[in-house]
Amino acid sequence: MSNTSKLFEIGKKVDPIMTKYLIEGASEDFKPILLHQIEAGGKRIRPAIVLLSCEAAGGNPEWAIWVAAALELIHNYTLLYDDIIDRGELRRGKKTTRAVYGDAMALLAGLHYREAINKLINRSPASYKLHELISQAIIELTEGERLDILFEQAGRTENYITEKRITTPSWSLYLDLIQKKTASLLIASARAGAIVADAPPEVEESFSKYGLNLGIAFQVIDDYLDLFGKEEKFGKEIGKDIKEHKLSNALILLALEELDYKNKEKLLSILRKESSAEEISEGIELIKSTKARERAINFAEERVKIAKTAINFLPDSNAKTLLNELADSVVKREV
Amino acid sequence: MSNTSKLFEIGKKVDPIMTKYLIEGASEDFKPILLHQIEAGGKRIRPAIVLLSCEAAGGNPEWAIWVAAALELIHNYTLLYDDIIDRGELRRGKKTTRAVYGDAMALLAGLHYREAINKLINRSPASYKLHELISQAIIELTEGERLDILFEQAGRTENYITEKRITTPSWSLYLDLIQKKTASLLIASARAGAIVADAPPEVEESFSKYGLNLGIAFQVIDDYLDLFGKEEKFGKEIGKDIKEHKLSNALILLALEELDYKNKEKLLSILRKESSAEEISEGIELIKSTKARERAINFAEERVKIAKTAINFLPDSNAKTLLNELADSVVKREV
Repeated sequence: MSNTSKLFEIGKKVDPIMTKYLIEGASEDFKPILLHQIEAGGKRIRPAIVLLSCEAAGGNPEWAIWVAAALELIHNYTLLYDDIIDRGELRRGKKTTRAVYGDAMALLAGLHYREAINKLINRSPASYKLHELISQAIIELTEGERLDILFEQAGRTENYITEKRITTPSWSLYLDLIQKKTASLLIASARAGAIVADAPPEVEESFSKYGLNLGIAFQVIDDYLDLFGKEEKFGKEIGKDIKEHKLSNALILLALEELDYKNKEKLLSILRKESSAEEISEGIELIKSTKARERAINFAEERVKIAKTAINFLPDSNAKTLLNELADSVVKREV
Repeated sequence: MSNTSKLFEIGKKVDPIMTKYLIEGASEDFKPILLHQIEAGGKRIRPAIVLLSCEAAGGNPEWAIWVAAALELIHNYTLLYDDIIDRGELRRGKKTTRAVYGDAMALLAGLHYREAINKLINRSPASYKLHELISQAIIELTEGERLDILFEQAGRTENYITEKRITTPSWSLYLDLIQKKTASLLIASARAGAIVADAPPEVEESFSKYGLNLGIAFQVIDDYLDLFGKEEKFGKEIGKDIKEHKLSNALILLALEELDYKNKEKLLSILRKESSAEEISEGIELIKSTKARERAINFAEERVKIAKTAINFLPDSNAKTLLNELADSVVKREV
């Protein structure tokens, strides 16, 4: 078995408990709506990190199963709402919950998800601390989503959004954004494992550093794949970020640094309008003409190194090896 | 000071702590969006019930302040989402959060509300039990909202909704609906006070009964006021339920029981289409021609009696007197 599928098998362990808590207390007619999102698949990376972090920190991963299931549900909870906000029709090649059942029902499903998460956390050892941890993470995710919307260069007409729109972002603002929208949940995952293992604060901090750098690398590679991935492998439409007017893509930002005035304006104009497939390809070609791809990959590789170094002090274990391999797999998935 | 304003003063005590937890961890640009909903006013009934129940059960209400604030935030959390689902523009005479900031930002605000609630509960004594209590209540509220949508006779095109629509509801199905959409949060409020007071299970059960019957009475009177209230006093548009095609109004259901075939079909047809103000008045007249008003008020008064009887065993106290008066005020607000 490859290590990727080994990681998937570990993360998958939460599925029965996640499903059980998700449908608990729901009416028969509501259950299909609730199950739609989690049955759409996913790599189960977050629960794998929780379980492995717990074990690598010297804890018994069996005690981390509830919070691991909660972390996977939080991820799906945010996807449900992302699709409402972005009017998403497809995800992982399947119709989204809102596309099948409508926005109102998808929204209600999200409310129910949050309570399943709450019950899972309440069931966990160290529940008090875990409640604080995940509330913090969801608050950051929410702010990340707010910033992500403001990074869009067109497509929304609300006054608040057009007034606050971020049109000339710095790299550090981008890092702030992806730390919130992506890394925060990986930080919480790694940290949750350490908390259940009752690890000392400095160990928890090291896991936090692992999650942070893993999350940043993950998002930068995701941005890469959005523009240069293979559609069938990536499971998402290529150039979706351009189509959705998102300036919050590392490669677009890096390319804009390099392009001359004329080409920079051209790329920005493609982002600002409802572009055709041809224009999107043109935008991708412009990015290709710069060193953005190389720089993004170097940046992500550097972050993976930092993530691995952060947990290097741990005694050798199977779990530690898998956490290192998980970090490596983030960058490897692009080639 | 009248007892209504005394109750309001008690409920208002949570405002500073509610605001503090709500904006904690939020960026400056997000705060106005978060504050909009709670600054729109409200009678603060739920926190008043929490604080009074705690005191009437022999506890110190100072210890119930966090969960009281949480209950008021839960109420506002559901209003935020109700307005998204019903495309509401006005509430309590003010523009809704979604009307000012758009659906996407209102949705993100809701996510943040839920975490403020979580932190408030975590801060409370008996937090483990309170987490379970409020998750249960929110799950019921969500199911209540789902049923409420299915009680609508027109206005939504999603397949799921048109297929599952409830066109011939029974009174018991209506009671199930309002128990979930309205009473569940009043049950949780009364129960939360008893939990913080560390009251024995049978006392908690009595408070639950108080909340249930109060909630049912409250919703039936709300349905009455929707059709026969005075706009400026009620703070809502008259006939909104008819306009929104809602068959989930006690008075409409009671009237339908009495009307002859022709008038029954007429009232239903008004509910099923986009009706003019004139047609809405015509519908109200049809309801007026039956004994629905009288029956609804009798029903609500009966429920208020049951609510008061449920807590009658408690030793006399100022808090008990106010809980009784709060119950009475629910029916009194109609005259």
